[in-house]
Amino acid sequence: MKQNYKIIIEYDGSNYSGWQIQKNTSQTIQQKLENALTKINKKRVRITGAGRTDAGVHAAGQTANFFLDVDIPPHKIPIALNSELPADIICKKAEKVEEDFHARYDARGKKYRYRILNSNFNSVFVRNFVYNVYKKLDIKIMQKAANVFVGSHDFAAFCAAGSSVESTVREIYSLDLYAADNGEIWIDVMGNGFLYNMIRILAGTLIETGLGKRSLSEMKYILQSCDRNNAGFTAPAQGLTLLEVFYG
Amino acid sequence: MKQNYKIIIEYDGSNYSGWQIQKNTSQTIQQKLENALTKINKKRVRITGAGRTDAGVHAAGQTANFFLDVDIPPHKIPIALNSELPADIICKKAEKVEEDFHARYDARGKKYRYRILNSNFNSVFVRNFVYNVYKKLDIKIMQKAANVFVGSHDFAAFCAAGSSVESTVREIYSLDLYAADNGEIWIDVMGNGFLYNMIRILAGTLIETGLGKRSLSEMKYILQSCDRNNAGFTAPAQGLTLLEVFYG
Repeated sequence: MKQNYKIIIEYDGSNYSGWQIQKNTSQTIQQKLENALTKINKKRVRITGAGRTDAGVHAAGQTANFFLDVDIPPHKIPIALNSELPADIICKKAEKVEEDFHARYDARGKKYRYRILNSNFNSVFVRNFVYNVYKKLDIKIMQKAANVFVGSHDFAAFCAAGSSVESTVREIYSLDLYAADNGEIWIDVMGNGFLYNMIRILAGTLIETGLGKRSLSEMKYILQSCDRNNAGFTAPAQGLTLLEVFYG
Repeated sequence: MKQNYKIIIEYDGSNYSGWQIQKNTSQTIQQKLENALTKINKKRVRITGAGRTDAGVHAAGQTANFFLDVDIPPHKIPIALNSELPADIICKKAEKVEEDFHARYDARGKKYRYRILNSNFNSVFVRNFVYNVYKKLDIKIMQKAANVFVGSHDFAAFCAAGSSVESTVREIYSLDLYAADNGEIWIDVMGNGFLYNMIRILAGTLIETGLGKRSLSEMKYILQSCDRNNAGFTAPAQGLTLLEVFYG
């Protein structure tokens, strides 16, 4: 009888081609985790992540589940995993869950943070985790623009081309801007799910608004147009971090 | 007539063999800066740093001076330098100074921070800038131990072997511990100068005290013994950052 485990993982996505296993590279988070788990379990283990973060995107609270043949007390899972994982992937927590728990299907929502460093100069200490915007951003205008996107909408204008999903309707529970004390501006977004590149296009659109390149009144039009060409640029992956996944 | 410039530099020391130029490697901060400055000046430039940080040690406010043949407005120096420097070295500020200004001789004091991550797990976001101590540290005891070292003392017990200095007497102006909100413990030390590895040996001794491996009453004895063998271990370089250099 296999045991289902749920884990919380933190990773620096800088050197990875994203979460999902790919044929032409072994540099994926999922691959590194499956390698480590397979070593512990002595038999092949597959892992299911709550969200497939893109290349270069980070996580502070990615959630995943997997089945082991061996029965290991949950508190020993992070220690065992971290001894096999590279330094840029860390398992923070593990617990036993019911057999039918599924990290992706059971997720009720996710929280992401887009980190902007609004400063004349980048910072060596956070450079891999922020997007550096040199010109001064108007955070108040950005918050007003952000408010337009809260709620249930068709976010087709904020979906990268090439994505094939049944519906482009998603619900954003909250979209809040914060000025952190080290010159960082955080765009914190919580929602029931996100389209391909949706948060990075939202961030890019808000940044262009904060720079005065776009007006507040455009926001409703962009959303209603359902046309990707009307929205802003796709902000770089390195600024984005998956903070938390919510369940049940 | 050459112009003397003073600059403030930030660097991630992880991939460098320290500040000072060395014969067998080009991976030094000083070398990278001199290369960039020489390119800008079109003639060889030598740079003088306030402190020679060790391999792996970082800086948020290293200070240095150099002379240029070309007359460049100070606000353009960081932009010109940063376009030539690698991403892990950033010039934050520059100003013109009197001909006799010397970054090392004129320094009145320096402030360093030793960052400890006191957590069961390391963090991918700060892993290169902290020393991760898994067991719970008693920060109150550490502060009491730290107080013993404040003032003017012979710090021979806290000086790495192989160092040849005229005097091992130094003055510590302040030595304060802070619990930051992300699980970090900071050891902030300000003084008129520091011996080779002095802050890292102080940090190591305080960590051993915070773990209960050393008693508070030992501190005075260690200091007075002037014997390196009596002090604690040399805490890893990666936790140490030069925050600021004080002048005039």
